[in-house]
Amino acid sequence: MAKFLTNRDENYAQWYNDLVIKAELAENSAVRGCMVIKPYGYAIWEKIQAELDRMFKATGHVNAYFPLFIPKSFFSKEAKHVEGFAKECAIVTHYRLKNDPNGKGVIVDPSAKLEEELIIRPTSETIIWNSYKNWIQSYRDLPILINQWCNVVRWEMRTRLFLRTAEFLWQEGHTAHATREEAVEETVRMINVYSDFAENYMALPVIKGYKSESERFAGAIDTYAIEALMQDGKALQAGTSHFLGQNFAKAFDVQFTDRTGKLDYVWATSWGLSTRMIGALIMAHADNHGLVLPPKLAPLQVVIIPIYKNTGQLEEISGAALKVKADLEAAGMTVKYDDRDTNKPGWKFADYELKGVPVRIAIGPRDIEQGTIEIARRDTLEKQTVGMNSAVSHISVLMADIQSNIYRKALEFRDQNTRKVDSWTDFVNLLENEGGFIMAHWDGSAETEEKIKEETKATIRCIPFDSPEEDGKCIYSGKPSKRRVLFARSY
Amino acid sequence: MAKFLTNRDENYAQWYNDLVIKAELAENSAVRGCMVIKPYGYAIWEKIQAELDRMFKATGHVNAYFPLFIPKSFFSKEAKHVEGFAKECAIVTHYRLKNDPNGKGVIVDPSAKLEEELIIRPTSETIIWNSYKNWIQSYRDLPILINQWCNVVRWEMRTRLFLRTAEFLWQEGHTAHATREEAVEETVRMINVYSDFAENYMALPVIKGYKSESERFAGAIDTYAIEALMQDGKALQAGTSHFLGQNFAKAFDVQFTDRTGKLDYVWATSWGLSTRMIGALIMAHADNHGLVLPPKLAPLQVVIIPIYKNTGQLEEISGAALKVKADLEAAGMTVKYDDRDTNKPGWKFADYELKGVPVRIAIGPRDIEQGTIEIARRDTLEKQTVGMNSAVSHISVLMADIQSNIYRKALEFRDQNTRKVDSWTDFVNLLENEGGFIMAHWDGSAETEEKIKEETKATIRCIPFDSPEEDGKCIYSGKPSKRRVLFARSY
Repeated sequence: MAKFLTNRDENYAQWYNDLVIKAELAENSAVRGCMVIKPYGYAIWEKIQAELDRMFKATGHVNAYFPLFIPKSFFSKEAKHVEGFAKECAIVTHYRLKNDPNGKGVIVDPSAKLEEELIIRPTSETIIWNSYKNWIQSYRDLPILINQWCNVVRWEMRTRLFLRTAEFLWQEGHTAHATREEAVEETVRMINVYSDFAENYMALPVIKGYKSESERFAGAIDTYAIEALMQDGKALQAGTSHFLGQNFAKAFDVQFTDRTGKLDYVWATSWGLSTRMIGALIMAHADNHGLVLPPKLAPLQVVIIPIYKNTGQLEEISGAALKVKADLEAAGMTVKYDDRDTNKPGWKFADYELKGVPVRIAIGPRDIEQGTIEIARRDTLEKQTVGMNSAVSHISVLMADIQSNIYRKALEFRDQNTRKVDSWTDFVNLLENEGGFIMAHWDGSAETEEKIKEETKATIRCIPFDSPEEDGKCIYSGKPSKRRVLFARSY
Repeated sequence: MAKFLTNRDENYAQWYNDLVIKAELAENSAVRGCMVIKPYGYAIWEKIQAELDRMFKATGHVNAYFPLFIPKSFFSKEAKHVEGFAKECAIVTHYRLKNDPNGKGVIVDPSAKLEEELIIRPTSETIIWNSYKNWIQSYRDLPILINQWCNVVRWEMRTRLFLRTAEFLWQEGHTAHATREEAVEETVRMINVYSDFAENYMALPVIKGYKSESERFAGAIDTYAIEALMQDGKALQAGTSHFLGQNFAKAFDVQFTDRTGKLDYVWATSWGLSTRMIGALIMAHADNHGLVLPPKLAPLQVVIIPIYKNTGQLEEISGAALKVKADLEAAGMTVKYDDRDTNKPGWKFADYELKGVPVRIAIGPRDIEQGTIEIARRDTLEKQTVGMNSAVSHISVLMADIQSNIYRKALEFRDQNTRKVDSWTDFVNLLENEGGFIMAHWDGSAETEEKIKEETKATIRCIPFDSPEEDGKCIYSGKPSKRRVLFARSY
């Protein structure tokens, strides 16, 4: 166990925070609630971006960029949106500083007050639909399939690195369609892209479903989400896709002439995924030794460490190590040879375990004699000695195995921690003692949902797409229910 | 000539603006001075990002992300920096909105006033050096070679799409070093990366040089710039690299223990390149037909257009076109087959010329009979008929030729418009009538520089690295001068 990490089972929250700091992923900045994403954390975000961007483009989307600022009045145009987003936000009121007449630095120039305040975007539906108004006249201008990579700000009171920060990075897709059917299809397509990404790249099993009305995006007709289970038994919403109906088109008066010549409002979707996913990656897979990164998102996939007593040995080992490195790189892997003489091998082993590098290779004098290398996999910490010549074929297979093993482990954990519950006592006890996902009946009312939340802090994470019809009674009110929904405490 | 474009020679500024709008690169937004970068414009930015990012990583840099907000007091810490940057900027003073008690939308909640105002970053030296303070103790922690891709805001009063906008996208590199020599080396390395990028990707010849003191970055010891000449005879600063000395380390108290155990302040550089470069790309190469994009930065490199009278012909042509498309794509090119039946070939020709697509292929019934295709290159508008089977080899060579021809043309223009001038009358006349780059003697004083600017609007663009020593007399004051410097009116 990495001794500078808090034990995961003793204090999960502290373990998480320690790990983010010690693995050099991010740290708090001088600005309340805003983090600095350090190079290693940002490299993971770059991997996430590259894969998602490829998937978005493969499904016909293009990128664009809209302003950081949103005029205050835009928020009031969509009635529900304003309730959800125009509250805790960063507000620009002035555009000039001047020298303090008392000689102490600079002060806000009171004469440079904006006529209308500008809000730093918490999400961009309003500014984007205000632009789409000028882009759309006819069905020929549709669909518009745009994504934006950017920063957004929500003035959160209690923040945690990656999980909840005032400023965060994300992508937000905003599409415009001629028909309801097409927009719904897009909403489904994108939640599927997210779940594909979560499961096949992040090695994170997710449950896809509808949000209940009270958990929906402010301004959406329907919100689909993917929900993942963290190792402390709490849920994390890992991506959302919203069917916005004609709400924003009506708010910004975006009409088009359809194929029959009739004027109609445009149909919309939006969908987003953020740097929060790095938090999910940590909380789902990491252990007391540090990060466990799925190979497909690991900035560094293989590290090679020489074990030597003198420079003669180091020279021989370096020759072999650089050959192995070149072979692995030719096979498409990202490899580092760490021959720094400032740190001992043991220190390096612990450091790369902390950083979650999927495969570590050690080469010592005996390996040179025997033509072997020692391979350690991060996920199971198992070691194995293999012939130097079979390094590439062996590690290629190993990478795929690590990727699927991390997923399988997370899936097993989730299966073991997903329970059907039919009594309120069991529901409360389970949440207190074990956590996890709970499949239970709910009467469908917002009142019941709110009371359950008040009494247990558990919320409806989603109504799973694949939740079968089943007669039952609401866990709280006893009223009839047609299907179970997914409850959990969540991040 | 694209008839909806203003003629470039009649009204250059209007031609530029028309082109940005009509080619769908960008448009003004509802927020004063902020633009919307549309998908085609953003696709060019993505190409620029990809190449630069590769070059930064090849020179040892990594990416990270620092907060959007900078506490107001940070600006006062570096005396010159505050003069340059903490003036026209966006200032966040509040963090909450509330419902208007009069029922009209939302208003700023006066009780949610920040203790210290936050400035939207105009550049990030201060917030970054405040972080570096915690990252650097010893020479072992150096160098730090970090780049950031982000948005910045400078409250410009007069804005122009891409060239000068309140919010813009850019990259900013911020490096920390143990010695002055190493930092100077880095400053030089990065201006060379920029000039390599400008010349070999943007096909934009640039002059590298030092900025005069008054044109330096606020807080820098030395600023190196690359300067390019636009087709209207005005200069455009296309990238800058700053040697910051120990100024920011002193302002933020960033000291380190050097190899000898002595405590010293850290040496710094910063360097940036922005979406302004898209403006340069347009103004340097475009013509009355539209954009002329260098193949290396063109989002779409080849477009194939079928010429047909009936669906039978279209089917035959499509078969051949898709084969050519697949072959070109296999050779690494980005190709589109535009078989939309909503527009005539002539309309498509004009549209892809407007968009600056380097190569257009037309295939008609006669081509099918003869096994040929018609190739038109955007830069010269020349057409040529070649055998279908030699499409890949022919177009590969053509692409390289277009790239170098665009550069050569811009270089010839610059050479023709770079003049040595030795009298004040010639200097003034030349600026009034021809514009262009002027190499002239200057006495080295800020007063003279300021007066020349007042009287002619020309500034010292740079003191070229390769400007030879040469005795002469200042064009304005007649005082002695040791070398010529580069004057021009500029964007």
